[in-house]
Amino acid sequence: MADIYEEALKAHKQWRGKIDIHSKVEVKTKEDLSLAYTPGVAEPCRKIYEKPNSVYDYTWKGNTVAVVTDGTAVLGLGDIGPKAALPVMEGKALLFKEFAGIDAIPICLDTKDPKEIITIIKAMAPTFGGINLEDISAPRCVEIERTLIEELDIPVFHDDQHGTAIVTIAALINALKIVNKKVDDIKVVVSGTGAAGSAIIKMLHHFGVKTIIAFNIDGALSKTMKRPMNFLEKEIVEITNEEQFNGSLAEAMVGADVFIGVSAPKLVSKAMVASMNAGAIVFPMANPESEIDYQDAIDAGAAVVGTGRSDHPNQINNVLAFPGLFKGAFVAGATKITENMKLAAAKAIAEIIPDSELTSEYIIPSPFNQELVEVIIREVAETAVQDGVIRKEH
Amino acid sequence: MADIYEEALKAHKQWRGKIDIHSKVEVKTKEDLSLAYTPGVAEPCRKIYEKPNSVYDYTWKGNTVAVVTDGTAVLGLGDIGPKAALPVMEGKALLFKEFAGIDAIPICLDTKDPKEIITIIKAMAPTFGGINLEDISAPRCVEIERTLIEELDIPVFHDDQHGTAIVTIAALINALKIVNKKVDDIKVVVSGTGAAGSAIIKMLHHFGVKTIIAFNIDGALSKTMKRPMNFLEKEIVEITNEEQFNGSLAEAMVGADVFIGVSAPKLVSKAMVASMNAGAIVFPMANPESEIDYQDAIDAGAAVVGTGRSDHPNQINNVLAFPGLFKGAFVAGATKITENMKLAAAKAIAEIIPDSELTSEYIIPSPFNQELVEVIIREVAETAVQDGVIRKEH
Repeated sequence: MADIYEEALKAHKQWRGKIDIHSKVEVKTKEDLSLAYTPGVAEPCRKIYEKPNSVYDYTWKGNTVAVVTDGTAVLGLGDIGPKAALPVMEGKALLFKEFAGIDAIPICLDTKDPKEIITIIKAMAPTFGGINLEDISAPRCVEIERTLIEELDIPVFHDDQHGTAIVTIAALINALKIVNKKVDDIKVVVSGTGAAGSAIIKMLHHFGVKTIIAFNIDGALSKTMKRPMNFLEKEIVEITNEEQFNGSLAEAMVGADVFIGVSAPKLVSKAMVASMNAGAIVFPMANPESEIDYQDAIDAGAAVVGTGRSDHPNQINNVLAFPGLFKGAFVAGATKITENMKLAAAKAIAEIIPDSELTSEYIIPSPFNQELVEVIIREVAETAVQDGVIRKEH
Repeated sequence: MADIYEEALKAHKQWRGKIDIHSKVEVKTKEDLSLAYTPGVAEPCRKIYEKPNSVYDYTWKGNTVAVVTDGTAVLGLGDIGPKAALPVMEGKALLFKEFAGIDAIPICLDTKDPKEIITIIKAMAPTFGGINLEDISAPRCVEIERTLIEELDIPVFHDDQHGTAIVTIAALINALKIVNKKVDDIKVVVSGTGAAGSAIIKMLHHFGVKTIIAFNIDGALSKTMKRPMNFLEKEIVEITNEEQFNGSLAEAMVGADVFIGVSAPKLVSKAMVASMNAGAIVFPMANPESEIDYQDAIDAGAAVVGTGRSDHPNQINNVLAFPGLFKGAFVAGATKITENMKLAAAKAIAEIIPDSELTSEYIIPSPFNQELVEVIIREVAETAVQDGVIRKEH
């Protein structure tokens, strides 16, 4: 690992920015200037003033995403602030461009106040076609995202929540095929109820999973929990743990079909995996060190294992989802990203692998799969139309 | 004019954005991903967390400008709002790239509250190397700019104020050579005390002009003025109109050497120009219709005439200044743009034309002059070093 860090540092110093702005228009003569700038530019301005939605016809708005962070939950590094978060946001912008041709702009905010973050993003929104929230700590990120979804007329998406959830569900769809189980029969244990965990739980529920038990640092989430719950936890207990189980993670995993971890290193032992049902699906995604090592989970008898790491099979990687998801929303002219659009993306990711090629070590396609983005774009765009979330012409 | 507007509209529809984001880094393999994104990206993040100014080494920050507007004073169109302002901001970003290789990002804000605008720009500042304020109405723009200059550690520059002032002074330097007059002997009448006018007046003063009379819609600015003055007007009367003249614009122009207009169409008659001193310099820059037509000013005997329009000689055009000015500040690592740096830019623009080539119809270089930007960059960067406004290493 040391080598990759040294190498990445050197590369970043050489790049001084992984993205840059290009001009699409030549400016070599007075005539060029008067078309792209004054006086000609006044005309599209007037048209947009008359019909605000024509901003999509005359500017870059329809293909742009602001990648916004406050630097409070960056990778595994935590609250490192807006400047130190910039390399990650540039990386995200790079992936938007490379995988879906979207123009994404990093915006790192020097404030942690959710109200102020909401005010700022709302004020900036006229410039952008979508907002990708990134690396904002939970549960603030959920409050920020919900308010913005409600108050803005462009897609707003917190990738750490829903990007992770989409790819996890995609992995689960294919893993269930491998072990030949049905979604409404399975018992799922989720460790972690932050940004990713809560979104995964909600998406599992929407996808049709009946039995979910959620854990965090204080144990199983149940209505009998002793400490006060935050709003996110209160929502989770409404759709999980019907039996109000309040034992340990190890006890919950006995007889479980699926374990999903978005929590902390080394919480799961080989014995715990061995205690699961036959055909156990184990997705320990804490990063860089997972809840249980890939090889340990295999050795303990798990049928399918997926992690967040690129050096094992089945990397559950957000980059599979967000570029195509946003592009699909853009292509359709969607004003928001619905639950169905997210599920359409998850299914598209799963189904890109033909059943004949599925193996326990190949349930997730490569992000470099050439067809993948196109299929996601098509499925998401169609679902947006079905869900009726398309903006009006003017 | 109708043709250029139709053509510009068609072109904007075809372009759908005059700029876009490009990736500087190939992402074709897992290894590419782990260098530019996770896990490798964590290392530059950690370095910046330790030494915040190393953000200039590992990201695009050092070469980026946010072009920020609230859409309240766009071209001659007025308060058309943030969406309708976007084509202009994109145009500005295009010029930054084409003329100085700077990565500029349009940010159109859906708020008119100066305090909120300040809060937003301060919060966004970690991402950018500089802030170019644009098309924000006066006197709010001055308040916003001053607060940001004071509170941020990156260059903040309101182009409508200082860009116009720099190029006006450049034009004046060469016009004075043509008519063989000295800066400390001349009497200058300025019509307009908004963003551009107030900045021009201050720069004239800094440049050494002793006699300035400023007019706005309520007449000559003087300490005996009857209505209450805003803070900007109060500052102007301190450096203009020593004799507390309170007659008409026509009366003030009798015997004047220079007229500078950044106000409204048709305020100046041929008779008024004819009443000026021999060797009159007339810069009627209201746009698209100026204080007096170019040809009328010539016919009335003006020795040198410059306007804001591209279809006459001597276009006083901001694009001559802002790209090189920002690039010069960036090259030097400047934390602000000082009065001396602006004056250095004005002199560089004037001096790019050899005295032997100066004529009354050629006092301003073409923005397409190949050497111009390089000279401005060098002069501005040297002046930044002399002024000691260079950021510390870490």
